[in-house]
Amino acid sequence: MLGEREARMALAGLESLGAIGFAKALAEFGPVDLWDGFVGQAETTTWGRKAAALDLDGLRRATDACGARFLIPGDAEWPVGLSDLDRVQVAQQGGQPVGLWAIGEQLNQLDTAVAVVGARAASGYGEQVALTLAADLAAAGHVVVSGMAFGIDGAAHRGALGVGGRSVAVVACGVDEPYPSAHRQLAAALAETGSIVSELPPGLRPTRYAFLARNRIIAALSSAVVVVEAALRSGAKNTASWASALGRPLFAVPGPVTSSLSATPHRLIRDGEAILCAGAADVESVLAPLGSLPEAESRGEQRPVDRLSPGLFEIREAVLPGEEVVFSQLCARTGQPVLEALANAAELVELGWLEELADGRFRLPRRPAG
Amino acid sequence: MLGEREARMALAGLESLGAIGFAKALAEFGPVDLWDGFVGQAETTTWGRKAAALDLDGLRRATDACGARFLIPGDAEWPVGLSDLDRVQVAQQGGQPVGLWAIGEQLNQLDTAVAVVGARAASGYGEQVALTLAADLAAAGHVVVSGMAFGIDGAAHRGALGVGGRSVAVVACGVDEPYPSAHRQLAAALAETGSIVSELPPGLRPTRYAFLARNRIIAALSSAVVVVEAALRSGAKNTASWASALGRPLFAVPGPVTSSLSATPHRLIRDGEAILCAGAADVESVLAPLGSLPEAESRGEQRPVDRLSPGLFEIREAVLPGEEVVFSQLCARTGQPVLEALANAAELVELGWLEELADGRFRLPRRPAG
Repeated sequence: MLGEREARMALAGLESLGAIGFAKALAEFGPVDLWDGFVGQAETTTWGRKAAALDLDGLRRATDACGARFLIPGDAEWPVGLSDLDRVQVAQQGGQPVGLWAIGEQLNQLDTAVAVVGARAASGYGEQVALTLAADLAAAGHVVVSGMAFGIDGAAHRGALGVGGRSVAVVACGVDEPYPSAHRQLAAALAETGSIVSELPPGLRPTRYAFLARNRIIAALSSAVVVVEAALRSGAKNTASWASALGRPLFAVPGPVTSSLSATPHRLIRDGEAILCAGAADVESVLAPLGSLPEAESRGEQRPVDRLSPGLFEIREAVLPGEEVVFSQLCARTGQPVLEALANAAELVELGWLEELADGRFRLPRRPAG
Repeated sequence: MLGEREARMALAGLESLGAIGFAKALAEFGPVDLWDGFVGQAETTTWGRKAAALDLDGLRRATDACGARFLIPGDAEWPVGLSDLDRVQVAQQGGQPVGLWAIGEQLNQLDTAVAVVGARAASGYGEQVALTLAADLAAAGHVVVSGMAFGIDGAAHRGALGVGGRSVAVVACGVDEPYPSAHRQLAAALAETGSIVSELPPGLRPTRYAFLARNRIIAALSSAVVVVEAALRSGAKNTASWASALGRPLFAVPGPVTSSLSATPHRLIRDGEAILCAGAADVESVLAPLGSLPEAESRGEQRPVDRLSPGLFEIREAVLPGEEVVFSQLCARTGQPVLEALANAAELVELGWLEELADGRFRLPRRPAG
């Protein structure tokens, strides 16, 4: 008879991928008895046939060969959030992973981890936002969780690693099989200064079902999930469903309404399923303990320019970066009467918000005041 | 003693611009007695001094000269929504206009009018969205209300007029004084096939206070208000406050989080003050009587492509417009196993969703199926 850890590794070798029946049987019988039961059903059930065919020694060797740890519930670094998966189902899937292979750093400090996920075929805008968002979150001490896919996922990992932050990739294949292969370098960087985890044994290539099952782990590992870009049907939408089911705050980043990649974020926001996220501060303001953040400033609403009186603000906003405008343009653009516009422009120059050139034209100063 | 219409024209000549005290006095005394009262205070109050100085005959002549009608509450074309202004205040302003000058078409069918407002210094994205949105709303029978300003306002009017729809401009100056002057042609088009209205007498140039007061009329005239782009402080934000105070559904169009012009729409959406608007269908779904719209379709969520099974959809989404991809790219981008991807691609070609070229590459068909 196997011990719990070995039984769980053997069970993980069956690739149950969030099958509800499997998770229920595991909860009912426990890993040791469940494995023994499967082995006894070698002739009669699918799980039994798979169990009989499993090469547990080969699995142990493959685990050691790639330097992976096989983690089980109760281990010090087992992420506690995963147990929430035993409470909920999405699209006939559910259940805490029976075990996890991990390489790289210990899976700790995940209590404020934030998942940043989205489309593979992301836009340049989406990748830029994901990169910046992940960098800002990581710089603020959040572990950034994603799926190491093309597009948003890759940008999120790179953003976090780029500022010396921590990032965890949950993959739909073996932790030793970087997928997609173009992300081999990213995988190496994550193994070095981040972590790669999977409920699938080393050596496995990804399947579509594995991608869906993996999404539940991304959501459960994290304290919040941000969807950056996603077409109307996408894996990110599935991750969003898991976040909602698990009670993790769900955020979505808006974008141009002319982009089909913003369709899902916009739908999630419009229907109240996700909170609009225009930057890391929006996530922080929800995750941070009440009262720990200076509310307005954290949301960028108190830029110094906002403290100008309406009349001054109008004139200041009428001058665009890089242009030089004549006085009559200030009047035309703001609708302010000449005397008022003159007074406002003079005050802005005095306060350092505008520069008046020798020929009387105005432009924004090289460095804004405030 | 003047009749009601003349008393109201005289009072309108005082340019009260939403002054709360004025509105309260008008409600208490009625227009005729209020005017007589003002005239009697020629030496003692500001309103009295203005009243004593008013040239009512000149006002009548100016009204006739520009072909304007002077409308008062109770007139058949007086927009009933304006009376809501007697109930609410925003930033010390309020009150139904004492009268309105109007040129162009009758102010009818405003019960489903939609205001489309936003930044003067709008982006190309914002103007394009405003134009399309207004065109779609106008084509669906909605009168499009805006302020004839540069940027979003102008685009909204043009979008509505461009599809032969109706548009109403509420201006912060005389109806005969197109402001900004660069919008002279737009003003002529509105006078021809739309309407221009103002609570200010003909001949007046705009002031900042008039812009703010005008916003309350835009909101009250409309059944819904859409903010397309607006910096953190802007007139559109003031219009949004009026919409909220008046109980008009408020919408905001999201955009790139990297654009400061999307800051106000995003804040309104995030804080639950505005509903996310990604297109006319979002406005329609709120304004239309319950059950009168085929919900999902009206929101663009049932594009034919959405009816594909997930496996087919993944492959279809992996091919971007204009590109030709080899089969291995389909596998790499979707993560589907080769046999599954082959079967899915073949089915998509059969259904007309993909084209297979002679060299085996795939591309999107010239006209999508569905």
